[in-house]
Amino acid sequence: MPSTGAIRVHNRHPLQGPQTEDKGCGMRLGVLTGGGDCPGLNAAIRGVVRKAERDHGDEIVGFLDGWRGVIEGDTMPLDISALRGTLPRGGTILGTSRVHPWMQDDGVERIERTLAEKEIDALVVIGGEGTLSCASRLHDDGVANLVGVPKTIDNDIGATEMTFGFMTAVDIVTEAIDRLHTTAESHDRVMVVEVMGRHVGHIATWAGIAGGATITLIPEEPFDVQEVADALRRRHARGRFASIVVVAEGARPAPGSIVVPEPEIDVYGHEVLGGIGSIVAREIEQRTGFETRVTVLGHVQRGGTPSAFDRVLCTWYGVAATEAVHDGDFGIMVALRDAKVVRVPLAQAVGELKLVEPDLWKVAKTFFA
Amino acid sequence: MPSTGAIRVHNRHPLQGPQTEDKGCGMRLGVLTGGGDCPGLNAAIRGVVRKAERDHGDEIVGFLDGWRGVIEGDTMPLDISALRGTLPRGGTILGTSRVHPWMQDDGVERIERTLAEKEIDALVVIGGEGTLSCASRLHDDGVANLVGVPKTIDNDIGATEMTFGFMTAVDIVTEAIDRLHTTAESHDRVMVVEVMGRHVGHIATWAGIAGGATITLIPEEPFDVQEVADALRRRHARGRFASIVVVAEGARPAPGSIVVPEPEIDVYGHEVLGGIGSIVAREIEQRTGFETRVTVLGHVQRGGTPSAFDRVLCTWYGVAATEAVHDGDFGIMVALRDAKVVRVPLAQAVGELKLVEPDLWKVAKTFFA
Amino acid sequence: MPSTGAIRVHNRHPLQGPQTEDKGCGMRLGVLTGGGDCPGLNAAIRGVVRKAERDHGDEIVGFLDGWRGVIEGDTMPLDISALRGTLPRGGTILGTSRVHPWMQDDGVERIERTLAEKEIDALVVIGGEGTLSCASRLHDDGVANLVGVPKTIDNDIGATEMTFGFMTAVDIVTEAIDRLHTTAESHDRVMVVEVMGRHVGHIATWAGIAGGATITLIPEEPFDVQEVADALRRRHARGRFASIVVVAEGARPAPGSIVVPEPEIDVYGHEVLGGIGSIVAREIEQRTGFETRVTVLGHVQRGGTPSAFDRVLCTWYGVAATEAVHDGDFGIMVALRDAKVVRVPLAQAVGELKLVEPDLWKVAKTFFA
Amino acid sequence: MPSTGAIRVHNRHPLQGPQTEDKGCGMRLGVLTGGGDCPGLNAAIRGVVRKAERDHGDEIVGFLDGWRGVIEGDTMPLDISALRGTLPRGGTILGTSRVHPWMQDDGVERIERTLAEKEIDALVVIGGEGTLSCASRLHDDGVANLVGVPKTIDNDIGATEMTFGFMTAVDIVTEAIDRLHTTAESHDRVMVVEVMGRHVGHIATWAGIAGGATITLIPEEPFDVQEVADALRRRHARGRFASIVVVAEGARPAPGSIVVPEPEIDVYGHEVLGGIGSIVAREIEQRTGFETRVTVLGHVQRGGTPSAFDRVLCTWYGVAATEAVHDGDFGIMVALRDAKVVRVPLAQAVGELKLVEPDLWKVAKTFFA
Repeated sequence: MPSTGAIRVHNRHPLQGPQTEDKGCGMRLGVLTGGGDCPGLNAAIRGVVRKAERDHGDEIVGFLDGWRGVIEGDTMPLDISALRGTLPRGGTILGTSRVHPWMQDDGVERIERTLAEKEIDALVVIGGEGTLSCASRLHDDGVANLVGVPKTIDNDIGATEMTFGFMTAVDIVTEAIDRLHTTAESHDRVMVVEVMGRHVGHIATWAGIAGGATITLIPEEPFDVQEVADALRRRHARGRFASIVVVAEGARPAPGSIVVPEPEIDVYGHEVLGGIGSIVAREIEQRTGFETRVTVLGHVQRGGTPSAFDRVLCTWYGVAATEAVHDGDFGIMVALRDAKVVRVPLAQAVGELKLVEPDLWKVAKTFFA
Repeated sequence: MPSTGAIRVHNRHPLQGPQTEDKGCGMRLGVLTGGGDCPGLNAAIRGVVRKAERDHGDEIVGFLDGWRGVIEGDTMPLDISALRGTLPRGGTILGTSRVHPWMQDDGVERIERTLAEKEIDALVVIGGEGTLSCASRLHDDGVANLVGVPKTIDNDIGATEMTFGFMTAVDIVTEAIDRLHTTAESHDRVMVVEVMGRHVGHIATWAGIAGGATITLIPEEPFDVQEVADALRRRHARGRFASIVVVAEGARPAPGSIVVPEPEIDVYGHEVLGGIGSIVAREIEQRTGFETRVTVLGHVQRGGTPSAFDRVLCTWYGVAATEAVHDGDFGIMVALRDAKVVRVPLAQAVGELKLVEPDLWKVAKTFFA
Repeated sequence: MPSTGAIRVHNRHPLQGPQTEDKGCGMRLGVLTGGGDCPGLNAAIRGVVRKAERDHGDEIVGFLDGWRGVIEGDTMPLDISALRGTLPRGGTILGTSRVHPWMQDDGVERIERTLAEKEIDALVVIGGEGTLSCASRLHDDGVANLVGVPKTIDNDIGATEMTFGFMTAVDIVTEAIDRLHTTAESHDRVMVVEVMGRHVGHIATWAGIAGGATITLIPEEPFDVQEVADALRRRHARGRFASIVVVAEGARPAPGSIVVPEPEIDVYGHEVLGGIGSIVAREIEQRTGFETRVTVLGHVQRGGTPSAFDRVLCTWYGVAATEAVHDGDFGIMVALRDAKVVRVPLAQAVGELKLVEPDLWKVAKTFFA
Repeated sequence: MPSTGAIRVHNRHPLQGPQTEDKGCGMRLGVLTGGGDCPGLNAAIRGVVRKAERDHGDEIVGFLDGWRGVIEGDTMPLDISALRGTLPRGGTILGTSRVHPWMQDDGVERIERTLAEKEIDALVVIGGEGTLSCASRLHDDGVANLVGVPKTIDNDIGATEMTFGFMTAVDIVTEAIDRLHTTAESHDRVMVVEVMGRHVGHIATWAGIAGGATITLIPEEPFDVQEVADALRRRHARGRFASIVVVAEGARPAPGSIVVPEPEIDVYGHEVLGGIGSIVAREIEQRTGFETRVTVLGHVQRGGTPSAFDRVLCTWYGVAATEAVHDGDFGIMVALRDAKVVRVPLAQAVGELKLVEPDLWKVAKTFFA
């Protein structure tokens, strides 16, 4: 798929054609990781660096703690040997933060200054919706030559079939549900599992199917807690006394069904409702009389070694990002489409929230109580 | 090690010597699992049944939901084929509950009636401190021929080096800590992990060592939260910005250091303090200014497939329990001592709470900040 | 994507339109699993059955041991309760075999007889290239109403991005490579890992990338063992003394480079070369002098619990296969395309061997020594 | 338990009492890891170093590649920061080899020279039977102040209940057997699994019980392959068509039962018989007609991240070894006894091969076909 992202060569860091073809005089490439921790960040960095150093002779500069490092000029050198052993390791050797350029008045100017001082020809930005939105705007404003890599365990970035980190999170949640099943069965209990997914229910839907959930609640479809209770009661009436209810943290009741606390507003302006798992558990217990327990999986979903799938995806993304840089194809994000890594405009990627595939959601519902 | 448990052959269900030697006319053996879910319950039942059916020609009766099944006469037949495929499966095919004989006026009488009606010669009781205390008392009162098997993820039963379920819980917690490390490092955060252990800190100590915790708090040693905060600050001053603090759910502050909510009283009369992980996290953040997050691992610690170690331990315990029954050696619990399974008096086992081995606690502290 | 498979309603088992819409008088649906064991078979069967029983009121008949059960009329009834607990379980409750209809003179006639006797309206065939080729031919010959589900850990079936079982195999191999790394490093050794993949190198390529292989050899690209040895020697000269070489079992040397044994011919007429891992290891050791060891992963790659990804894929495939049956859309295979499950003609699916994506192979090579 | 190892303070590197008490003037402590790779080596080194640096102010010198580093004076400095991140990592940052002092004429002299030149006060030797035998002899000859740490996945070292690495190997083998079960069941096959254990059957016995093996063959008890075949045939006659046979690599047939190749002699003079798994598989298939496959697990058993149990055991051993050094208690090995780490004479530890506990072997046999 051809990229529709126009190539912008801004005037401060011109990309002379020959540079990218002559290994002897490579580019100076910056890399940063922003947003929340996510399995595979190191593997993505490693993919960028390996391709850049080996095939293009680039020098690579790592910016520390996401946009903070670019604003403040805080860097570390990156080469193949610095990445040794990082493929299976979770986290990011660059650190990350939620700092963004418009948090301070002169954020963008300071970014321009850093890129000039460090003589950065292009920047590979590895991050989620927040981080990539910044990249898109900086690209539009001609501040830098940028290529995005989609990272988020939530898998909610449009224009790509899969973000990295997501499948690892699904593995972790599925393993937890496998364990909770036996406790549910031993005690004839309803076990409610709250999983990540503030705006979309990808993790809940996938792990709900993989873990054999009785019911799954996702942000895409407001739920009626009385219907949930009724379904569980019908199931008990059929002699099945143990149930697993998977609740995405962003799931919310249909208007009027139950009262929930006011949502908070997060750093990117999204509403976040806390503790929906506990609310659902309490309501189920009250309406059915069935013993109900809640488990909030929390941060274990976003750390640790990436799964094999994510390691491959990250590596491919990283290599493809470097290729885009050397093609002078900026303002794009690498993306998975039809089992291939392609390029899509950053603006398109961050402009849409990717919801759960309706067919898959129907599959999930086929197994509901 | 010879058992010191006197052999009690009560008059309602006499154990005639020849019975146990003649495979053709085996005993009628009851089995129950009580208390909380725990990996390995099925493996232990399977060990009891295999030995009893194969080597002694016993008939085995499973009582459902712990003492409830004995009180109410609720049973299922158990034989080798019923246990097929259960070795790696978590939970208990018998179900479990926290019902106990003295919860109701005529509980003990009903137990006597059930055992007489079902012609049960002996009862293998698989459970933790609560369940085994009941067994010990029923033995002392001459109600039944009982053999205990020590199960609890907390590992707090005296007289045995290891209860089953414990090592699986340690594996699960360690894997979670491994994952939390990368998030702590990526964000320069303090991650507080609350793990099971109401009265003792075995899981916290083992998983804290195995997971490389910065500090571990256990019930055995009241903590001063200011000292915890100071230690973390010293660590940050040395350039280590990420920390993992493991907190056993029963850990509590030294008198006067911080105010915590009143503990609840659980079904066995023990005090239970809720939410210590969150309290510790809040105090750390307030006293250090370091970003701090809490994860409460909860029920995932007690379900799912047992580890290889627990499968072996359960199987050995189960086989040994049947051997004790056929030796007419009642009122005992099977126990791990010096890499062998031996018999110890039930009264001794439930009379003492096993604390964390002081030498191991010293090892843990060697790695504290 | 619309199916191009013509709907064939053969005269022995007419599908009356109303049947599929009236839950009260559903169809009689047969299911079989053929070929080698593969994680997710049970999950796929469960998907078929759940959708058929719940939404269409079908009766489902399981045929035992693949085509053998259809030829011999050997069946078991399948309903939702029969599938309980099978989602995470590897293997297939139906059994499998490599028997096929043309192994015996009257195989096809016996299949027709069985389908008539059992009044089977349609058959869902879960299998790899061999099993689905039979299905395609039976469809073309008008023998039965067939829908295929692509299963093979090798991922070599055309017309679908992914077969189920593949990602689980990649997980298993990656975990093994992770372990072999440390032994390679501790001993300054070359570790050769032979993995499955007779005709294509999907497992080797994915696990090679995910595991950080030094070199990967696949059937798609004949190798020169002297080049492999030279690359390892260059790597050692750079101070990296430990290497992992991943070899697909179907990898073979370029003509003239080394002599290997004659390949065997398998049941479907393909050539199979045994022991390429050992040959490569021996040649490397002789040509470099580096201590070299071989590990043949073998059957552990194809058994056990499916990964979360495969559980979702299988479930989706199973549900989609039942939907195709009730749409009267036969002669098709369900397939993954662009993150959706679609239908493709069986003939197309089995007509082409899917090779490793060239872009991904280039990514793999970026990391070669 | 008091150590019975006499304290030997040899004249070249006197241990002045005050040294060990004054953190300001610590000792110079050497560490080496010898023999085969084993999960937990890094964790043990980390335990030694942490205790030594933190509590005693020691300087620690790492010798590379086992005895080779001591003979050749090849070292790296070790301190707490050098060990960062190594707890969960398999392998050994010091490297290992099977070189030993008596392989060359002047090996012992060169060791003495190195220890004098590097001013090493004491040496912590982490290794298996071969490595520790050397340590014992060097101690007896007054060459150095030595403390041993028992490492071997085979668990065959006397005088300790558990060597580290063993439980991780059991976990890995059990997981492999879990996977092989489904293939055995799907295909009605006998699956033979060859596991490590040249002289003893600890891994085979533990993993055989944990994995639900049909039959396990270990070096401690020569087997009659006809009895194995007969047992499998009886099992099939009872309707159980899938079987797992676990074979320790050192298992061998009773005299006269089948002809096997001549054993090789390994570096320590032990006999090693190759390929017993394949021999057993071939004989079973020939004698029963049941389809039989063999899997040789090989090196995956000895690498990778240590289990939680092994991480705790290694850490405890490492800390205890440093404590022994500072107590001036040499010629001893740290050991696990009765759930505590104690000290035992090196001579005792290497003088006896620890066989499988007879009671546990009886448990294993309870589950045989």
